[in-house]
Amino acid sequence: MIPTLKGNMLIAQSGGPTAVINRSLVGAIQEAKRHKEIQGIYGARHGIKGLLDENIIDLRRESAANLAAVAATPSAALGSVRKKPTQEECRRIFDVLRKYNVHYLFYIGGNDSAETTQIIADEAIKLNYEFRCFHIPKTIDNDLLENDHTPGFGSAAKFVACAVLGSSLDNSALPGVTIDVIMGRHAGFLAASAALARVCPDDGPHLIYLPERPFDLAQYLNDVKRVYDRLGRCVVVVSEGISDAAGTAIATKFSSEKDSHGNIQLSGTGALGDLLANEIRSKAGITRVRADTFGYLQRSFPGLVSETDAREAQTVGKLAARWSVGKAPSGSVAIRRSPGKKYAVFFECVPLAAVAKATRHMPEEFINKEGNDVTQAFLDYARPIVGPLPKVARLRGVRVPRLG
Amino acid sequence: MIPTLKGNMLIAQSGGPTAVINRSLVGAIQEAKRHKEIQGIYGARHGIKGLLDENIIDLRRESAANLAAVAATPSAALGSVRKKPTQEECRRIFDVLRKYNVHYLFYIGGNDSAETTQIIADEAIKLNYEFRCFHIPKTIDNDLLENDHTPGFGSAAKFVACAVLGSSLDNSALPGVTIDVIMGRHAGFLAASAALARVCPDDGPHLIYLPERPFDLAQYLNDVKRVYDRLGRCVVVVSEGISDAAGTAIATKFSSEKDSHGNIQLSGTGALGDLLANEIRSKAGITRVRADTFGYLQRSFPGLVSETDAREAQTVGKLAARWSVGKAPSGSVAIRRSPGKKYAVFFECVPLAAVAKATRHMPEEFINKEGNDVTQAFLDYARPIVGPLPKVARLRGVRVPRLG
Repeated sequence: MIPTLKGNMLIAQSGGPTAVINRSLVGAIQEAKRHKEIQGIYGARHGIKGLLDENIIDLRRESAANLAAVAATPSAALGSVRKKPTQEECRRIFDVLRKYNVHYLFYIGGNDSAETTQIIADEAIKLNYEFRCFHIPKTIDNDLLENDHTPGFGSAAKFVACAVLGSSLDNSALPGVTIDVIMGRHAGFLAASAALARVCPDDGPHLIYLPERPFDLAQYLNDVKRVYDRLGRCVVVVSEGISDAAGTAIATKFSSEKDSHGNIQLSGTGALGDLLANEIRSKAGITRVRADTFGYLQRSFPGLVSETDAREAQTVGKLAARWSVGKAPSGSVAIRRSPGKKYAVFFECVPLAAVAKATRHMPEEFINKEGNDVTQAFLDYARPIVGPLPKVARLRGVRVPRLG
Repeated sequence: MIPTLKGNMLIAQSGGPTAVINRSLVGAIQEAKRHKEIQGIYGARHGIKGLLDENIIDLRRESAANLAAVAATPSAALGSVRKKPTQEECRRIFDVLRKYNVHYLFYIGGNDSAETTQIIADEAIKLNYEFRCFHIPKTIDNDLLENDHTPGFGSAAKFVACAVLGSSLDNSALPGVTIDVIMGRHAGFLAASAALARVCPDDGPHLIYLPERPFDLAQYLNDVKRVYDRLGRCVVVVSEGISDAAGTAIATKFSSEKDSHGNIQLSGTGALGDLLANEIRSKAGITRVRADTFGYLQRSFPGLVSETDAREAQTVGKLAARWSVGKAPSGSVAIRRSPGKKYAVFFECVPLAAVAKATRHMPEEFINKEGNDVTQAFLDYARPIVGPLPKVARLRGVRVPRLG
């Protein structure tokens, strides 16, 4: 138990948006309203940027109906930011917190945001400022330490699985090589989720390349040729972050060769997909090669959420608010999976330092030996988080006997 | 009325798949079963290629339940092809039709497929072969003459509108310039449909460029700068087929500058988006610029159909089968819109020549004067075809007064 602390609360969102980040926002607001220790409920626009600029809104002025509608809306309703505070900004943050009598801070984001939360929490201790400071997890990359999985991942994974399901059906209608480039700079969970699209043994994706294993162009070419020779088609899924044995991202490696492309980012550009397509076109003698880069659609597509993800996102928001009042001065809400066959989770309060900065990767047992697919263990892990996909069917296709 | 003709039927799919092309297939099969004139119900794999190769399946061996499941599956269940028959192939086609006693042919596709259907119908007349030959319309491009709109368009347009709705929300959370590249080589209907994503006046897409108007890089830069100066962000939608005043596609125009990209197609590559992003980055002094190319997701995404589109796709299949028995020896099923405020359509049998080859474009009254947006007339046209989009909401956002 911690001492009672009266004051206003401030909540903000940070990092890449997700389809369910507003569920966490609304979950925290709803729970905060139930605790009389929490007085004003404020939101900062665009994360700590709004805090520094005093761009603050009054979340008690939002109707319950509008909050429910916002919860079901993808992307960050308060606006987001990618920013770590400097020492000077940290002091400025506490000037603002003091001025607005804010003693409860909630920051929704990934590992960078957890680090920001930790910096602010540490500063409060140094300043002897009475403070509750919680990180609320979200990231489509699913790369937070301490968590079985993270809010936002399940819905993004559902988008990816649906998209690759369609992509594979499209590729079987007009055969060739299709390359689908999926978000994920360091962790391959999202690209791996494409495997959920398989229904029949010959369904795509036929090959999956992840940032956790070195990407070798020669192996990739051989893999694609082998699948193409067998099936007459091939659907390849790659993480945008695939890197060579030295750890250099493939997307950036090729950039010197093509200056008209300018600065190559990993997301928001089709460069990696085009490069991988050209490799096949020029070296495997296959003419119909197409690359699609799913881009920001993966994290912001409306009307397509995993129910499990939506529910858990709301819960982590609620729990952060609840725990800040009675349980701990600071922390992050971690999702753990209960042992046993049936899917169930529980939540734990973990120190900010435990989730800040570092990145979780796909464990070894989720990746096959050849490094070009996932294992059954991954499918068992991911399926309940993502939930059911749309049902698809093929024709039975009984051949009419060839007439003489 | 036409004479009674007994024989087997053959159906096939051609061109780019859509989310509802299998509804037309199943609609035709279901209706064919009701007519005793039609005996065997065959399907050719991959359009006329399957016909030439005698790769034919027996569609009477499919259960009603499986057909219903196939109808709800995106992409072409029989497989598709892009191919126009040569004179020699045309003779070979009639050898096969004779051998399998096929006197009813149904070809589901766009204007190229209508041309193929017409070539085969004309050959039947020359050969004095008793024949019923129908084209069943489909194309996400919505560019068939004689039709108010085409099956496949509504669902693809719904995907585009949903995607741009999410893209715009994402762009408002992390402001910058977002460029979304939409399918459509010659007709801008699909890109134009992104406008349905707007709820509030400042919602994206803020600019829409279509192949129907010459694309001018200087105007594009000015347009983006103007929107960015006003809103601090800008969501741009472009058709993959945008072309300069001379009619040269922008995507191909730049290709000589970047040979590492190899052969530039319009779809299945991120090149156009990357080029447009680099223009902004290098000349407008805006740093956060992202381009997403939606690619094949637009035509094959499972579980996301327009109900109107799904229903009409099934109807055109049914009507082709029905009309082939009692109404006309050949033709295409055209969708016409009834006059009046309430959305209603009727169907007409039009000659194959009327829909073959040529492409319909966005009418003048659907494009604004500046050539960078659509008009209310387009929104009124498209909304009932696409149907409702997921509801999204923003925070009311009452500012906390700045303290002294």
